[in-house]
Amino acid sequence: MSALSTKRIVLAARPVGKAKEDDFRLEQAPVSDPGAGQLLLRTRYLSLDPYMRGRMEEAVAIGDVMVGQSVVDVLVSNHPSYKAGDVVLAQTGWQTLSISNGERLRKLDAADFPITTGLGVLGMPGFTAYVGMRLIGQPKRGETVVVAAASGPVGSLVGQLARIAGARAVGIAGGPDKCAFVKNKLGFDVAIDHRAPDLAQKLAVACPNGIDVYFENVGGAVWAAAWPLLNRLARVPVCGLVSQFGQQTPPGPDRLPATMRQILVKGLTVRGFINSDFLDQFSDFQREVSAGVSSGQIKYREDVIDGLENAPKAFIGMLEGRNFGKVIIRVAD
Amino acid sequence: MSALSTKRIVLAARPVGKAKEDDFRLEQAPVSDPGAGQLLLRTRYLSLDPYMRGRMEEAVAIGDVMVGQSVVDVLVSNHPSYKAGDVVLAQTGWQTLSISNGERLRKLDAADFPITTGLGVLGMPGFTAYVGMRLIGQPKRGETVVVAAASGPVGSLVGQLARIAGARAVGIAGGPDKCAFVKNKLGFDVAIDHRAPDLAQKLAVACPNGIDVYFENVGGAVWAAAWPLLNRLARVPVCGLVSQFGQQTPPGPDRLPATMRQILVKGLTVRGFINSDFLDQFSDFQREVSAGVSSGQIKYREDVIDGLENAPKAFIGMLEGRNFGKVIIRVAD
Repeated sequence: MSALSTKRIVLAARPVGKAKEDDFRLEQAPVSDPGAGQLLLRTRYLSLDPYMRGRMEEAVAIGDVMVGQSVVDVLVSNHPSYKAGDVVLAQTGWQTLSISNGERLRKLDAADFPITTGLGVLGMPGFTAYVGMRLIGQPKRGETVVVAAASGPVGSLVGQLARIAGARAVGIAGGPDKCAFVKNKLGFDVAIDHRAPDLAQKLAVACPNGIDVYFENVGGAVWAAAWPLLNRLARVPVCGLVSQFGQQTPPGPDRLPATMRQILVKGLTVRGFINSDFLDQFSDFQREVSAGVSSGQIKYREDVIDGLENAPKAFIGMLEGRNFGKVIIRVAD
Repeated sequence: MSALSTKRIVLAARPVGKAKEDDFRLEQAPVSDPGAGQLLLRTRYLSLDPYMRGRMEEAVAIGDVMVGQSVVDVLVSNHPSYKAGDVVLAQTGWQTLSISNGERLRKLDAADFPITTGLGVLGMPGFTAYVGMRLIGQPKRGETVVVAAASGPVGSLVGQLARIAGARAVGIAGGPDKCAFVKNKLGFDVAIDHRAPDLAQKLAVACPNGIDVYFENVGGAVWAAAWPLLNRLARVPVCGLVSQFGQQTPPGPDRLPATMRQILVKGLTVRGFINSDFLDQFSDFQREVSAGVSSGQIKYREDVIDGLENAPKAFIGMLEGRNFGKVIIRVAD
């Protein structure tokens, strides 16, 4: 019997409306010794991502560890592909120590890039931007691409990929600091503060030739502002609807028939995607985006918070847009 | 000054709710002699199609001739590409005689196929089915394809193309005669009567493995029945929403947020298309579908009504599903 124990954050209750700190619980639990073919992992960095809010609805059982990807050190390996000391991406969930059977691990080469990038610009958030743009958005020179949460890990890459394709990038972000970052550091053509009361009008002014790609990662008011501006044959990759979580079905009017009519009349493409369906494109993504990061053409920002115990608060803050860049919990250095 | 005159049907009023016969007016008008480069055309067959209901909302001015495609005889030609006696597809609108400058004409070879097929299975309705399936639907062997108005010119080809691709075809049609035709003549796997009070349940029973392609050409109750059955990565080509014409915005609840959530979670593709955007595929369509018609693999049905003066009534009947097959007005033989 191992003397080791893990600190972990479990789902204490299903959120009603907005997620709150009481929906999580920090607890201590014993960790068994790694068996044949298994590894003992120590979490260094934990990724917090909006999709986790969806997992709280059903996928994670009450009392189970919250799911999540992390950068870990291999402490003990009984697995032929890994050795103690390797730095690996893993699906450990929100905890300090864990046992793995070696599935869904990927070695990181710490020499090339800061290891935290494997959770952000060179990881799943970056891949989400890449796949959505390559598969669905397909921006062409001179077109206009709009994305919200533009200082976040997905939105920031969406806009930069748009610029690389020769398109105009319009980003929506919360507050003057993020807007300045989006425009001045990331190089978007325009940044709009979504807290502005006249968002729809500001967006219309920022898109004098309409919108060709609206990368949907928030829903709600941004969708309502972008929708009327969509051009004929516009594309709408749908990767997230974070504003909708915990929302009741709105009373009406029913916007669906008018939406379908616009899809028909304008020949729009509205397509959801889950990046794990397109892992065959992951190596292309890594090659292209890591080259851009290396050259300095692609920029990114991380928002690192210390301590696993602060994950629930940081997660809730992220859903409310209080983060500034990719949210990462430093669990152990 | 020519002594010729045309009988024509003009838009008398914009429809409020359902289109009615009073929204049209039959009138006589003089026809000028064809000038340099022009042709005088006599309409033989006029196509009636659901999209025309949309044109009555805005595109056709009050007092203007209703738009529409037809098979015509060239009576006089001052155009180098055509001669008197040619049989041609033209955009004459709902009238007996017309002048053309030669644009948007296409010669028909009456020897190959009945000339009316140029308005149906080998014309725009057939091309709509072909493009929607090739571009968006992309049915694979063993998948399930659902289409409404399955005895009509678009739906009937959608189901037959599904079968040719090795998919299961489920058709929805109005009444036992059409259902028998869809199943027994067109070879769909299942035909469902949309007048059944338990349409949603019948559709669920007919699709035990869910729906991979829902070809949307009607909207309304069929959409509501098909939507919950869509599988992950399902495709929804949207080519028409005939049930929505004249409908007010429904009071609610607002189904849009839940619809967007399903698009995200299931990775759905919902894409509108207008076949004139894809004319580069027209020759492929003609080659493939005419081969199928020649061999007897592809079947079609036409519903021919005599007399231009009967076009409004036939058109309204078509919107209400009282036709049986592609609606064509025999204007002159």
